[in-house]
Amino acid sequence: MALEIGFVGLGAMGAPIAANLLVAGHHLTVWNRTRSKAEPLRHKGAHLVDHPGDVAKSGGIVVSMLADDAALEQLVLGEAELAYRLGKGGVHVSLSTVSPATTRHLAKRHHEAGGALIAAPVFGRPDAAAAKRLAVCVSGSPAPKERVRPILDAIGVAVFDFGSEPGAANVAKLAGNFMIASALEAMGEAFVMAEKQGLDRKQLANLLGSTLFACPVYQIYGPLIAERRHSPAGFRLPLGLKDLELAIKTAAEVNVPLPLGSMLRDRFMAALANGREDLDWSAVALGASDDAGLRGNSSS
Amino acid sequence: MALEIGFVGLGAMGAPIAANLLVAGHHLTVWNRTRSKAEPLRHKGAHLVDHPGDVAKSGGIVVSMLADDAALEQLVLGEAELAYRLGKGGVHVSLSTVSPATTRHLAKRHHEAGGALIAAPVFGRPDAAAAKRLAVCVSGSPAPKERVRPILDAIGVAVFDFGSEPGAANVAKLAGNFMIASALEAMGEAFVMAEKQGLDRKQLANLLGSTLFACPVYQIYGPLIAERRHSPAGFRLPLGLKDLELAIKTAAEVNVPLPLGSMLRDRFMAALANGREDLDWSAVALGASDDAGLRGNSSS
Amino acid sequence: MALEIGFVGLGAMGAPIAANLLVAGHHLTVWNRTRSKAEPLRHKGAHLVDHPGDVAKSGGIVVSMLADDAALEQLVLGEAELAYRLGKGGVHVSLSTVSPATTRHLAKRHHEAGGALIAAPVFGRPDAAAAKRLAVCVSGSPAPKERVRPILDAIGVAVFDFGSEPGAANVAKLAGNFMIASALEAMGEAFVMAEKQGLDRKQLANLLGSTLFACPVYQIYGPLIAERRHSPAGFRLPLGLKDLELAIKTAAEVNVPLPLGSMLRDRFMAALANGREDLDWSAVALGASDDAGLRGNSSS
Amino acid sequence: MALEIGFVGLGAMGAPIAANLLVAGHHLTVWNRTRSKAEPLRHKGAHLVDHPGDVAKSGGIVVSMLADDAALEQLVLGEAELAYRLGKGGVHVSLSTVSPATTRHLAKRHHEAGGALIAAPVFGRPDAAAAKRLAVCVSGSPAPKERVRPILDAIGVAVFDFGSEPGAANVAKLAGNFMIASALEAMGEAFVMAEKQGLDRKQLANLLGSTLFACPVYQIYGPLIAERRHSPAGFRLPLGLKDLELAIKTAAEVNVPLPLGSMLRDRFMAALANGREDLDWSAVALGASDDAGLRGNSSS
Repeated sequence: MALEIGFVGLGAMGAPIAANLLVAGHHLTVWNRTRSKAEPLRHKGAHLVDHPGDVAKSGGIVVSMLADDAALEQLVLGEAELAYRLGKGGVHVSLSTVSPATTRHLAKRHHEAGGALIAAPVFGRPDAAAAKRLAVCVSGSPAPKERVRPILDAIGVAVFDFGSEPGAANVAKLAGNFMIASALEAMGEAFVMAEKQGLDRKQLANLLGSTLFACPVYQIYGPLIAERRHSPAGFRLPLGLKDLELAIKTAAEVNVPLPLGSMLRDRFMAALANGREDLDWSAVALGASDDAGLRGNSSS
Repeated sequence: MALEIGFVGLGAMGAPIAANLLVAGHHLTVWNRTRSKAEPLRHKGAHLVDHPGDVAKSGGIVVSMLADDAALEQLVLGEAELAYRLGKGGVHVSLSTVSPATTRHLAKRHHEAGGALIAAPVFGRPDAAAAKRLAVCVSGSPAPKERVRPILDAIGVAVFDFGSEPGAANVAKLAGNFMIASALEAMGEAFVMAEKQGLDRKQLANLLGSTLFACPVYQIYGPLIAERRHSPAGFRLPLGLKDLELAIKTAAEVNVPLPLGSMLRDRFMAALANGREDLDWSAVALGASDDAGLRGNSSS
Repeated sequence: MALEIGFVGLGAMGAPIAANLLVAGHHLTVWNRTRSKAEPLRHKGAHLVDHPGDVAKSGGIVVSMLADDAALEQLVLGEAELAYRLGKGGVHVSLSTVSPATTRHLAKRHHEAGGALIAAPVFGRPDAAAAKRLAVCVSGSPAPKERVRPILDAIGVAVFDFGSEPGAANVAKLAGNFMIASALEAMGEAFVMAEKQGLDRKQLANLLGSTLFACPVYQIYGPLIAERRHSPAGFRLPLGLKDLELAIKTAAEVNVPLPLGSMLRDRFMAALANGREDLDWSAVALGASDDAGLRGNSSS
Repeated sequence: MALEIGFVGLGAMGAPIAANLLVAGHHLTVWNRTRSKAEPLRHKGAHLVDHPGDVAKSGGIVVSMLADDAALEQLVLGEAELAYRLGKGGVHVSLSTVSPATTRHLAKRHHEAGGALIAAPVFGRPDAAAAKRLAVCVSGSPAPKERVRPILDAIGVAVFDFGSEPGAANVAKLAGNFMIASALEAMGEAFVMAEKQGLDRKQLANLLGSTLFACPVYQIYGPLIAERRHSPAGFRLPLGLKDLELAIKTAAEVNVPLPLGSMLRDRFMAALANGREDLDWSAVALGASDDAGLRGNSSS
């Protein structure tokens, strides 16, 4: 059944996701800060509006994919007044990677307005979004979650339901990103040990990625790290740091130390201090090379 | 073509590997410290001898799978005099997880005796060994490596050749075990953050293991860590510490710091100090639970 | 020359400091949230007021010693309107341990109102405050800094001027607290190594505190840590965590990783998760005991 | 009362110590690998011998100050046969910084020969040795310890007795060096945070060294680190790493993780990998500068 959907945020991830919703037969009303980025979608049948609030109808559905907590707060509580405009019976499907605390706070505002916020952060890079291969984590109230399920099915390959507590899906997403970053560091250290012992980094990446670690994270990042190929950036390093800090903050709320997370945060910060802000977040692995005196090798 | 093979070391890994060599049609002469463990192999056709040196014939082939560097040194240089007995043209296939330094040292002795040592450490637990699903890393001189290739094919599912430098395969093996340990710690931290935020640990393990991390390490250890099920031990915690220390030592030889490795070593040591020496090495993940005040939950 | 001084914040540190200002002959107008705590000062000659804003006169001087950044912001920008009330020519001497960012922000507001904020955080515990043995760090505009110099001389034993940038003194204070925390952890680890090797912890503390480390931090905390005597708290553990987080945040502003700071933060958090929130911050050293399996010894 | 003393090891520390023994009126028979280094002592009255074993008389006293565990083992068990030559009633005063394990092992050999080994490692750099300002830790059997007490009094300013277990004094010495290294890292991180926040590193070192941390470690190393002045080396960086590794190994014997020690070890190793092997061990503090992108500033 075709749904009427408002959509905000046509960035590298949002654009292919919105396109898939059109492919699935849904009707889209979209807004994006940079209007030109919305044009391709208009050609595919989306309706463009001039103000973010105009994507929402009372009791309707809006999907958002934004850069950070502040942008999401601005959408819900700021001038766009999304919580108010969606009003009674409205559902806001929030795909952004934000803190569970922000999700909980905004879910309460939607609830006060008679609606609901469903957190549905996704795993996957832009090519996975385009290919409908995203993994979707979801949490929030059962009824609205059920209602928007066709949307989740239209954008991803699998949906993992973490229950009714609104922030739970964000916790899962942050846990996943923390684990990817951990794998980046582990590869960084292992590969530089192998290199200085005379092995071929690429061959080690190949061994691991085709046996014990035959899964996307290692198969995607293993060769990049082995070859120190961190540009162009699929996911920029400062965004990796942002997500890691959200994980650390989320853990700290419940007094959970993340020593590996702390080490990673320091690695990311050192990468920024050493001029790597435009590289892919996999460049965090260069820290291990610097430590080992292979700084010359580190400049990609 | 059937080969005459001497075999030393019928432990949890050695026994199924030797059995697969028999299945492949090779002739085995075996020795094991505890003779009773060799009996099942005798029933499958292996010839038993009373002294380890007796598995070797001048110019022949011997495969060993031993507990640690000291045991391997003892076999090659001690009373069994393997380097001398294999002599000119002999090949020693060393499957043990040992330091590259030990391999290099012993390879030199074999070389002086006119033979060769081929390092061929394997990835996989005993069930993988039985199922012939091991991944084999190999390094050493080209000609003897070629000669023993049928042995490697008979025990594993894939062979990764790291060249002629004898210790290279050991470096790869230690790098792999370091990376597994890193994954254990990452799961330990991520799961306890999720747990204290109200999520179901098992569900998070399931999400990760069926998407980004859909590979053996996470699929095997994810559920064990999620359920804090660390007994019976597939690979005992002190052995994990031993391998990690070999990795740190191997990295230190070439001035490579492994900060993640150091953190893991401290986690393993804390696990020993807290009475977990009989648990599986995945119990290293309990450290994150202790830190988070979930010590009660930590006792399996 | 006697000064007219407003004073806000009569806690464990503020009360003895205010008393010393009276002893030095200055005139005090004081306010405290809990009025009863101000009574002893009234008996010593201070004038009490009912609203915090009433301690300020246009062009006058106010000294504040508050719990955290939020309380200080509230005083300057909230209902008390301190920046506005001090107005043109007024000087606010801020003794609190807060972030340099907060100081800079509030200094700007005072500047806009025609006045100045002088940061003057102090080192020392309440007994040092009472004994006029505080070390005072100071930063801010030269002229107002000169004007309030008699105040700084009246409360401490030495004044260290970090120049005209308002936040600089706060950076120095946070650096100092970070270094104290580092010393606590170092003692925690060293003493437990010594203990499990059969040495007397107290004797080691005595050796260090009377030779290489013959200075207040080690002489005060060494015996406390050696004897695991962390109650009563001179400075509660959560306050130590707060200061450490300010240091980490301040370092992060300029992309400086503090790996030792991160480790300490995780130790503090683990201490909270393990029920040590009411102990002195030196109890952070118990983490090393826990790791070493001496948890039983750790409960003071 | 003048003693007859054999002395082995006239390095940067041994030479001034031996000179002080002469000043105190004792009779010295000395040996040093490089004979020319012993000449100045001969002019002060020492008797030179050509073989290390010749410094010992049966039942006599020998003092040694050597580079590492291997050199000490060589003296006691090697060609010089010190344990055997000192024989019954002989006492070996071992000033070297070695592992308690080595001390225990060698003490047993001396005991078997009817003599005793007294561990007496010292704190202080060469100038402190010359000025008789060393702090001496001592451990070993009571009677021989009492007998050599005049020697300890003649070389240092204070003696700390850690009891009869021979290795105890070495544990204390390693604990102390670990704590100094911890202070170096803490200063490295604190100073770079301050620097990038606009403060003067030297002023911060001055503040700390004249208040909270008014003790030798911070007063000696604070200015060096603040000015990044790590040459000439008072104590070379690789020696610092050696001592830290002894501490880590000593802690590991009793299952004590030293996470701060591990971090320091990685810092030292990174310093070696980055060409700092000839600098003073305080150069370990440059790691924090590298992380913060101040590598240019780091080359002294």
